[in-house]
Amino acid sequence: MNALPNLSATMPQPAGLGAQYTQVRQRTAALCEPLSPEDTVVQSMPDASPAKWHLAHTTWFFEQFILSRREGFKPFRPRWDFLFNSYYQSVGPMHARPQRGLLSRPSLREVMAYRAHVDAAMAEALAGEVSPEVAFLVTLGLNHEQQHQELLLTDIKHLLSINPLQPAYRDDLAQRRATASPLSFVDGHAGVIEAGHAGVGFAYDNEGPRHPSLLHPHQIAQRPVTNAEYRQFIDEGGYRTPTLWMAEGWDVVQRQDWAHPLYWSDDLQSEFTLGGRRDIDPHAPVCHVSYFEADAFARWAGARLPREDEWEHLASAQAAISGNFQDDDLLQPMPADEPSEGVSQLFGDVWEWTSSPYVSYPGFKPLEGALGEYNGKFMCGQWVLRGGSCATPVSHIRATYRNFFYPADRWQFMGIRLGRDVS
Amino acid sequence: MNALPNLSATMPQPAGLGAQYTQVRQRTAALCEPLSPEDTVVQSMPDASPAKWHLAHTTWFFEQFILSRREGFKPFRPRWDFLFNSYYQSVGPMHARPQRGLLSRPSLREVMAYRAHVDAAMAEALAGEVSPEVAFLVTLGLNHEQQHQELLLTDIKHLLSINPLQPAYRDDLAQRRATASPLSFVDGHAGVIEAGHAGVGFAYDNEGPRHPSLLHPHQIAQRPVTNAEYRQFIDEGGYRTPTLWMAEGWDVVQRQDWAHPLYWSDDLQSEFTLGGRRDIDPHAPVCHVSYFEADAFARWAGARLPREDEWEHLASAQAAISGNFQDDDLLQPMPADEPSEGVSQLFGDVWEWTSSPYVSYPGFKPLEGALGEYNGKFMCGQWVLRGGSCATPVSHIRATYRNFFYPADRWQFMGIRLGRDVS
Amino acid sequence: MNALPNLSATMPQPAGLGAQYTQVRQRTAALCEPLSPEDTVVQSMPDASPAKWHLAHTTWFFEQFILSRREGFKPFRPRWDFLFNSYYQSVGPMHARPQRGLLSRPSLREVMAYRAHVDAAMAEALAGEVSPEVAFLVTLGLNHEQQHQELLLTDIKHLLSINPLQPAYRDDLAQRRATASPLSFVDGHAGVIEAGHAGVGFAYDNEGPRHPSLLHPHQIAQRPVTNAEYRQFIDEGGYRTPTLWMAEGWDVVQRQDWAHPLYWSDDLQSEFTLGGRRDIDPHAPVCHVSYFEADAFARWAGARLPREDEWEHLASAQAAISGNFQDDDLLQPMPADEPSEGVSQLFGDVWEWTSSPYVSYPGFKPLEGALGEYNGKFMCGQWVLRGGSCATPVSHIRATYRNFFYPADRWQFMGIRLGRDVS
Amino acid sequence: MNALPNLSATMPQPAGLGAQYTQVRQRTAALCEPLSPEDTVVQSMPDASPAKWHLAHTTWFFEQFILSRREGFKPFRPRWDFLFNSYYQSVGPMHARPQRGLLSRPSLREVMAYRAHVDAAMAEALAGEVSPEVAFLVTLGLNHEQQHQELLLTDIKHLLSINPLQPAYRDDLAQRRATASPLSFVDGHAGVIEAGHAGVGFAYDNEGPRHPSLLHPHQIAQRPVTNAEYRQFIDEGGYRTPTLWMAEGWDVVQRQDWAHPLYWSDDLQSEFTLGGRRDIDPHAPVCHVSYFEADAFARWAGARLPREDEWEHLASAQAAISGNFQDDDLLQPMPADEPSEGVSQLFGDVWEWTSSPYVSYPGFKPLEGALGEYNGKFMCGQWVLRGGSCATPVSHIRATYRNFFYPADRWQFMGIRLGRDVS
Repeated sequence: MNALPNLSATMPQPAGLGAQYTQVRQRTAALCEPLSPEDTVVQSMPDASPAKWHLAHTTWFFEQFILSRREGFKPFRPRWDFLFNSYYQSVGPMHARPQRGLLSRPSLREVMAYRAHVDAAMAEALAGEVSPEVAFLVTLGLNHEQQHQELLLTDIKHLLSINPLQPAYRDDLAQRRATASPLSFVDGHAGVIEAGHAGVGFAYDNEGPRHPSLLHPHQIAQRPVTNAEYRQFIDEGGYRTPTLWMAEGWDVVQRQDWAHPLYWSDDLQSEFTLGGRRDIDPHAPVCHVSYFEADAFARWAGARLPREDEWEHLASAQAAISGNFQDDDLLQPMPADEPSEGVSQLFGDVWEWTSSPYVSYPGFKPLEGALGEYNGKFMCGQWVLRGGSCATPVSHIRATYRNFFYPADRWQFMGIRLGRDVS
Repeated sequence: MNALPNLSATMPQPAGLGAQYTQVRQRTAALCEPLSPEDTVVQSMPDASPAKWHLAHTTWFFEQFILSRREGFKPFRPRWDFLFNSYYQSVGPMHARPQRGLLSRPSLREVMAYRAHVDAAMAEALAGEVSPEVAFLVTLGLNHEQQHQELLLTDIKHLLSINPLQPAYRDDLAQRRATASPLSFVDGHAGVIEAGHAGVGFAYDNEGPRHPSLLHPHQIAQRPVTNAEYRQFIDEGGYRTPTLWMAEGWDVVQRQDWAHPLYWSDDLQSEFTLGGRRDIDPHAPVCHVSYFEADAFARWAGARLPREDEWEHLASAQAAISGNFQDDDLLQPMPADEPSEGVSQLFGDVWEWTSSPYVSYPGFKPLEGALGEYNGKFMCGQWVLRGGSCATPVSHIRATYRNFFYPADRWQFMGIRLGRDVS
Repeated sequence: MNALPNLSATMPQPAGLGAQYTQVRQRTAALCEPLSPEDTVVQSMPDASPAKWHLAHTTWFFEQFILSRREGFKPFRPRWDFLFNSYYQSVGPMHARPQRGLLSRPSLREVMAYRAHVDAAMAEALAGEVSPEVAFLVTLGLNHEQQHQELLLTDIKHLLSINPLQPAYRDDLAQRRATASPLSFVDGHAGVIEAGHAGVGFAYDNEGPRHPSLLHPHQIAQRPVTNAEYRQFIDEGGYRTPTLWMAEGWDVVQRQDWAHPLYWSDDLQSEFTLGGRRDIDPHAPVCHVSYFEADAFARWAGARLPREDEWEHLASAQAAISGNFQDDDLLQPMPADEPSEGVSQLFGDVWEWTSSPYVSYPGFKPLEGALGEYNGKFMCGQWVLRGGSCATPVSHIRATYRNFFYPADRWQFMGIRLGRDVS
Repeated sequence: MNALPNLSATMPQPAGLGAQYTQVRQRTAALCEPLSPEDTVVQSMPDASPAKWHLAHTTWFFEQFILSRREGFKPFRPRWDFLFNSYYQSVGPMHARPQRGLLSRPSLREVMAYRAHVDAAMAEALAGEVSPEVAFLVTLGLNHEQQHQELLLTDIKHLLSINPLQPAYRDDLAQRRATASPLSFVDGHAGVIEAGHAGVGFAYDNEGPRHPSLLHPHQIAQRPVTNAEYRQFIDEGGYRTPTLWMAEGWDVVQRQDWAHPLYWSDDLQSEFTLGGRRDIDPHAPVCHVSYFEADAFARWAGARLPREDEWEHLASAQAAISGNFQDDDLLQPMPADEPSEGVSQLFGDVWEWTSSPYVSYPGFKPLEGALGEYNGKFMCGQWVLRGGSCATPVSHIRATYRNFFYPADRWQFMGIRLGRDVS
């Protein structure tokens, strides 16, 4: 498999891969523990998937891309391929995405047996010597599973939110109080920089190749927009002023009667969280806003969203990746711990919408074979978000990491950081 | 509650009501035993409801219409009203029907606790002296629950049928073999008859009042149309001949690519049943056909469908109500036991489409209050079916019983009996 | 052509057929005179057709069913068949109905040339001896064209009504003032009567055969419901009370925000008419209401709609067919000329919704061949209306005439006459 | 009006403005001459507008943005504002775009009277001294009208194409034959360049500001992709190979059964043109392909689409803007006149899809006021096309001109030029 030479060369030694595998896989199962079997079946909207599907699909990924290449391989169940392939056309036909919620069978119990079966086979595969290709594929599979951990949380949040009983995912989630610092801006670098992944350690294909990029004079806000600031936008008629919006965004606002972020109550006092309904914290970063809302807010504020290379250059200079992540077990954006002089909350809390459409970097080559479908074919109509969220595992994020969603999507933990031109 | 005097006067003595209550309620739970919790959540199409919803809604019916009128009543859970009201606008707002499958909570376990709670309260209510009104309402509730037993089976069948794994509801269902007798017709009565329910024993409001009706000279087939006969219709181009169809039916055939009954395989060899996929039995009554298909078949056969009063007059003359019912535990239409000289299979096996639109009888008065919404408001756009099916409890059916569905509906156990004019 | 023996035997002598032909055809053209070429192209909704299409389709009917059977026939334009066939599947494929408004070509001028061409050929065909079959077909074609005259007017009314400029079809339409008599009821006949067309003179196949029918004791209102009465229904919350409505009707009310008859202004003061926007006349019959609205109004009024055989029996006893018809050139329902002791306005002004679903009479046989598609295949999901309207030519109507529309249709001149049971 | 100082400073002297006005306005009317009144009413799809609407809207633009600011102004018709405003929310509410085809009134004649009225008032306005602001606005209005000239042609082409009669827009259009040169690539410049409009002469706001841009090493094809080359893509399964496509594009291919460019016959032999149906010329540039098809073709060819700054840098170096434009009166892409050594057909023939999403340039400022809605609010979800087409007036195009459409749009004259990375 000569598709990945440059990447596999840079992978960490296989030592520790088995432990990583175990840790990530157990984490996924742990995230499902608060769920009833019934919770794991339902698909609340076409964009979301049932938890049971996430559990099975991430398992299928290892079976398909690693185990099926081993001698003597037999699939756990012959027809599950069709059910748990997400979108890899090269691998074969697949069950239609909007119908994932119609599969009451296999049951959660059977899916957990599938996980155990594949985990046992993977343990065997990782016990002996592991080739660089396999090491890469396992690492890719674990990153893939971490992505689905985040989706699992956002999909469950959506499902519970539309239930009139408004049940909490968990009753034991802590909260953190702090006061947001006043909004200020820091100067960004101007001129030609190097952007994209440098090739050391794991990265997705869409993060490379490393390439020169030209930054124009600009500034970036030192922290994300807060709920209080967003509330002011609402109070001053933001959702009723068409000239603040992209034409397509204004259509969505009209058609779906948007008047506040997803999960906010109509009286703008409370919001639905994974810990149940809570009062809105004015100091916390605003969350669950679409690109359209982020862009309209920025226009209202006399600013714009940062470009992804502006964001990346600033983030690359941070001493460490720290912030409110899935590992912190808060599962909701929180105010920054203490007023910060420098830039805060670039990582964690909320994915930050950028003004960059999701397209390929100069010289981009997708992975060869079916895995080339992982990222490249979505480079149309979506926008880049950066920095990870309170639902992202900290080990999953990088300064070069490119997330992407459609401009009307709101169910991820998405927020806003402002940028502006300097002339 | 003076809405029901004429009906309650004819009700059987309350003695035995408690036993009936227990029997019907336990039967519903027994029907759900082969299901996993996951099976009980999913709504496979807007017409169908999740099993969990059926279990809760039938319970709500007793809570709402009997228990809530008792002193000291407190609802089991305050907001479940909203979730489990089906369509009684008089009672309050309700959760939208097509979203019943989005409710992962309450869980199946909680719903079963709800059933136990209401059953205990009902046992108390039925222990002492029971007024005629309450006796009527309990009987209505039990008939209501029997209807939902049938829907539960047809909805589960649909859910499992769309699963690519094609799982069976039960693996232990028996089958019966027999040879269909040649098709022949019996003479129907012509002239003014009395139709509708005579007021002895329970009946729905839509079965009355008893009224004179004029029958024109006609004949009715002595048995339902078989799979073999329907197969001939297909082979001779029935689904490709627009002049055989109602205009609206032809639209559906085109739009949905109908080429055979629901649940038949495209090669016309097998069909999906509650016992899994089986070879089609040429001698069994054809099933899961819409009104459009029944009407087109009849036109192709140079016949027509019986009118509902023609059917009822014939059925009223039968010595007993016997046939293949839910109680027989076959859950699939079967060939008649032995070639019959007279009319066979009027009751059981398949609901028989009539050529009668579902409208009110002369002098019809719906029940007063919310229960008046039970039947009357659906008297538009639907067609009457008669006789019950293999999924109907035998104690539920009568010669005067009027079932009704939209002309494109196919997921009930619906079949065809021919009639024809005599000139 | 032996399909029509019983009908053709009863046809009037061909003498005068040519004159009738000329009169009807010229009338159609005259109805289009107030229209610009632009007005004749647009299809304002799938139910409506462009005037240009009506002009061409009625012409195609004569070409297809009469001229094409004559020796040496050549079609005016080879591919127009496809464009102007409405729904005769037996004749060949056809242009999709909802796309009739996309045909800018042929132009109105070309269509008028088509009419002239066919009229000349028809003049030739009618000049010599005319066989009974041809006489029947010509009469059918003229009745067909009269139906399209009415549709032409209702379709134009709809088109102009949705234009923000609210242009009038004609500025010179007269109005008539009168005071509606107080609402009272007359006794209907009870017992077995003969209904349906007796076979003398032209009638559509769906009006026969003549057959016995059983009338139950009932009364019928002596005049249609007025705007003032309907206004009271609105004022007392008719459109906000779900228990007054069929379930399907209530869905439509909700989904389409119905709060008054079609063409009424939201302030309930004015209505759009073919003469432009006018004040609502409280004494005139309410018009442009659906079956759902008629049925809800009747329920609110403690009454019901008449059955079609009740209506027909009453209408058959009228001395003459008189009323406000297309020939009166008012083109809007008007109050009855003078307070009437007997039954008034059975004919003309508004089509009256009945409580009868549109199904076949006992022993019904559609015409043979393609013309069998004229009526029979629509006997599903529609309701019968009786009596003709202010847009119907008086020569077109009979006591046995059955019109039919879907229960949500409102754009025809449809109104309400009440009936009620007598017990 | 201080919104436009920098732009108006660079405008040509008002001398000649009146003549330009007359020329452009007359050209629009001339384009409509081959149309019947009926042709000018119909809207064949939501993306297209009726010719009558184009004629009125372009006139409204002058009335709204120039005449209404003059003393003593009275609108031609008070309510036409509402009808002929396209999307300027700042100016007031507007008629819904998909309903433009429902307006039979005002008639074409009335619209032409509107044009005459506004032209007379504009002649007066341009007779005396013209301020720089007015000069700018007139120039903007004329460029706006030229855009609508192109849309008028593409919208008419679509309308006639869906007519089963396949009528030609004009019968007198010439064709040109030539042989396409073999495909080769030229080297593009790499490094930081200046891109965007330099501020001399008219340009839209979205073409500026001029800004540095970084070009990566690349090549660009010397001519557009031909029909013969595209035919090979089809023959080799291009439309059946999901891995060649963006995920969203593949969905469209499946859902709409795309198997060739818009207007090609299913046998791949002929195409619909403004001159009627013609044989496909293998040497002509392929046309009426979407971004999805252009992108899939490029991937199949081992290439990519050029970035918009790569394209612009190459085009800026051309000695003159020459090519097959609206002025050539061919109205269909043609093979290049003679085999060219250098780059050919950058301008004219077909708009060339680039791989650049349509977003703002660094430092972009939309025009102030309502005209700021002209371009900026569409910077989401669309892709840039460059170079103009056979339906573009030559005086309308520039090297910096940015056209933009949605990736599934095909009804404009859109084609493909390849680019590729150099490593």
